[in-house]
Amino acid sequence: MDSSFYLYNSLTRTTELFTPLVPGKAGMYVCGPTVYSNAHLGHARPAITFDLLYRYLLHLGYQVRYVRNITDVGHLEDEAEETGEDKIAKKARLEQLEPMEVVQKYMNTFHRNMADLNTLPPGIEPRASGHIIEQQVMIRRLMEKGYAYGINGSVYFDVVKYDRDFRYGILSGRNLEEMMSNSRQLEGQQEKRNPYDFALWKKAAPEHIMRWPSEWSEGFPGWHLECSAMSTKYLGEVFDIHGGGMDLQFPHHECEIAQSTAVLGHPTVRYWVHNNMITINGQKMARSLGNFITLDELFSGNHPLLTQAYSPMTIRFFILQAHYRSTLDFSNEALQAAGKGLEKLMKAVALLDKLKTSGSSSADISALEQKCSEAINDDLNSPVLIAHLFDGVRIINSVYDGSVTLTAEDLEKLRKLFYTYVFDILGLKNESSGTAQPELISGLVELAMQIRTNARNNKDWGTSDFIRNELARIGIVVKDRKDGFEWEIKGD
Amino acid sequence: MDSSFYLYNSLTRTTELFTPLVPGKAGMYVCGPTVYSNAHLGHARPAITFDLLYRYLLHLGYQVRYVRNITDVGHLEDEAEETGEDKIAKKARLEQLEPMEVVQKYMNTFHRNMADLNTLPPGIEPRASGHIIEQQVMIRRLMEKGYAYGINGSVYFDVVKYDRDFRYGILSGRNLEEMMSNSRQLEGQQEKRNPYDFALWKKAAPEHIMRWPSEWSEGFPGWHLECSAMSTKYLGEVFDIHGGGMDLQFPHHECEIAQSTAVLGHPTVRYWVHNNMITINGQKMARSLGNFITLDELFSGNHPLLTQAYSPMTIRFFILQAHYRSTLDFSNEALQAAGKGLEKLMKAVALLDKLKTSGSSSADISALEQKCSEAINDDLNSPVLIAHLFDGVRIINSVYDGSVTLTAEDLEKLRKLFYTYVFDILGLKNESSGTAQPELISGLVELAMQIRTNARNNKDWGTSDFIRNELARIGIVVKDRKDGFEWEIKGD
Repeated sequence: MDSSFYLYNSLTRTTELFTPLVPGKAGMYVCGPTVYSNAHLGHARPAITFDLLYRYLLHLGYQVRYVRNITDVGHLEDEAEETGEDKIAKKARLEQLEPMEVVQKYMNTFHRNMADLNTLPPGIEPRASGHIIEQQVMIRRLMEKGYAYGINGSVYFDVVKYDRDFRYGILSGRNLEEMMSNSRQLEGQQEKRNPYDFALWKKAAPEHIMRWPSEWSEGFPGWHLECSAMSTKYLGEVFDIHGGGMDLQFPHHECEIAQSTAVLGHPTVRYWVHNNMITINGQKMARSLGNFITLDELFSGNHPLLTQAYSPMTIRFFILQAHYRSTLDFSNEALQAAGKGLEKLMKAVALLDKLKTSGSSSADISALEQKCSEAINDDLNSPVLIAHLFDGVRIINSVYDGSVTLTAEDLEKLRKLFYTYVFDILGLKNESSGTAQPELISGLVELAMQIRTNARNNKDWGTSDFIRNELARIGIVVKDRKDGFEWEIKGD
Repeated sequence: MDSSFYLYNSLTRTTELFTPLVPGKAGMYVCGPTVYSNAHLGHARPAITFDLLYRYLLHLGYQVRYVRNITDVGHLEDEAEETGEDKIAKKARLEQLEPMEVVQKYMNTFHRNMADLNTLPPGIEPRASGHIIEQQVMIRRLMEKGYAYGINGSVYFDVVKYDRDFRYGILSGRNLEEMMSNSRQLEGQQEKRNPYDFALWKKAAPEHIMRWPSEWSEGFPGWHLECSAMSTKYLGEVFDIHGGGMDLQFPHHECEIAQSTAVLGHPTVRYWVHNNMITINGQKMARSLGNFITLDELFSGNHPLLTQAYSPMTIRFFILQAHYRSTLDFSNEALQAAGKGLEKLMKAVALLDKLKTSGSSSADISALEQKCSEAINDDLNSPVLIAHLFDGVRIINSVYDGSVTLTAEDLEKLRKLFYTYVFDILGLKNESSGTAQPELISGLVELAMQIRTNARNNKDWGTSDFIRNELARIGIVVKDRKDGFEWEIKGD
């Protein structure tokens, strides 16, 4: 097992050597989507970032327990004020469906899109609504320890008390006193003791559909609670990696740290990993700005901002071309460039099988191996890794042209390097070989038959028979008819 | 909306006119898999049966709420005695995984296989472990009403008391007194008052991983309870259709009826629908008999009993060729025959676009429409429907040969009939157009290039240019090289 993998820890703000809690095993929790609408460009970046991390940990030989949740309850419209309708319940009302029909619909779409992007499915995909008991148990423990208080059937986390005993704000670098002195007090509007207290359990309003019984009220859990409850349940009281988008650092992950630390008396997460955001032509993506693009729209090109369709692998390659902690600006030009780069890379991979070997090598494959390994070990530096792979592409093309030579051993090393990094670790795949091309096949058969008809008109029976026999060999059966011909692909 | 759809009700043992509880809406609950191993042939039949029913209800214009559960807890090894390890926990122990990793793995495979078989996903797919609170609420209500008793931290359903107030055994036609007089008493082994009482809540043994807190014990719900709790939650206290395999009638569905009826005071399900079983070469499928075939094995042909691979649509067509309430014997011969039948049907569908029309019709398409509609309305009689479709195949082939004529209007009617029944209702699809055929494409391009090389050798520049240009038009770019040529499919 490679012991020199370094990962940036958002909590310590340093790049640290990755050493797992239990040798040979790695536990990873990643915040998944709230499934109330179609997956969009913003979902692609964390999905691909943590897929890269998962794939690399697997490559290093770790047995990885990868947990990614589905938020299907408790995420309210106004996240900051914790007010408004539940996002899923609102959609259910608009679409005249049961909330869980909304959840199922958008969860299915999310899974389909994630498969399109060639991300590996997590080992456990727990749902918030499926862990109400676990969340209630955690609330009880927080109340017992004095970190939570009930009022009017709801239960809130006491941030002031927590900040006194531990420290609130360590992940996002905030200071509770400063926050409080800067915040506008919303007088009389709130039942919370402090504006930064957050809900653990909310009493359901009469019209609220998603509700469960509890000793406090018929209600539902607060949004932040599910991740504390489910990560502890499936990964234990201390685990290796917690991932998510940078926008989740505050308040979501800060609250998660507070909840788990208050219950257990110690931090639970060893490495906090956050991916940066995607902007669109320099702007944040938002429905109100009209630049909100779903993954299905990207794959089909069906959006006013898109000049063409972009394949899932183009999106994946585009995202991998930036380091996960850098911002990444989406534009048609950038995606088109990514598509060209990917094509060049895949062409080189295809050429690997056609290269001739020599008695000696004039390129240093071991040095290339070393550089690729250093790049990925340096906090998953995929853009640098890809740059090194393009050095490899130049070597491949030069061997093909005859201007560079490789021994059989070096060629095998180069092939292994490309297959490992391109397919296993970067998780790219060859899209052309996986798609259906019935029109292409029929076009090619029609062409062959047209040549055959010409040959027959010229009484060139040799060519005519040759085409018919070759087609039969390939698996195309041709039947001559009075007014032309018919063909079909030989069935099984 | 067609008002003449008849469905066999296992409870009344008669074929009844289907009339929904709420006009225009239909609620359907179907027992899904226990996800502790790969989906097998036995899963295909209920999946396809209830997909046919779902598709037909949608075709009739109903807004259908289709709920199919995932059993991920509580299904013990010895179903009858309710003893032994939890099936999922056992697999987790053997595979050294967390139980929910086992669930996720086999649930993903199940979903993939179901998509292969072209079944539509249910609108809600609730998991037993995600509805522990709902099950606990139901246990409390049963205890309050005197139909359940606690002992040693477990809670059992009191079948004797229930049988006195309602009647136990109405679905399977059993009589509790007879059952008890015929049953061997297991003295001292059981804590239940009566051998036919069944568990609602089981206290977890110390080694049992899957457990939740409750006022009775740390434990887990009984297997039968989830379906009562989840069907009521998502479909209401009375709903239209409950489906499942015939093997679930007793004890599973009998216990479900008892639980729901005891809580609510009235029956919940209006139509009980059960599919019959699949046998293999006349025998029941069982791991111990060595005739246990998974769906992946069927699709790949990788099983000692299989003489070849069978495509998902061949399996689907094979299952639809029998009425869902008849037994169905699997054999290589039967599947091969199904494959041939499907091919014949699909060829006829393809011919529909090539038929010439006449001034008059010599075949009665309206009569065919009527027969097809009668067949599907008669308790989903898919074999009779398929027989009528083959009458249609004969008409199509005869029109193609010129021995039968159709007006444009009748041809359109025939096309609509085939598209509706074959694709929408029977849920078949053309597999050849959906599969990747890279070898076929490369074979065809190589053939075209070989002819072009021959032409060039004969200085037939016209043919050479024609081939190159035609290939470019189709989307194949040819580059000449010193030692031959290269080609590629034009990228996006």
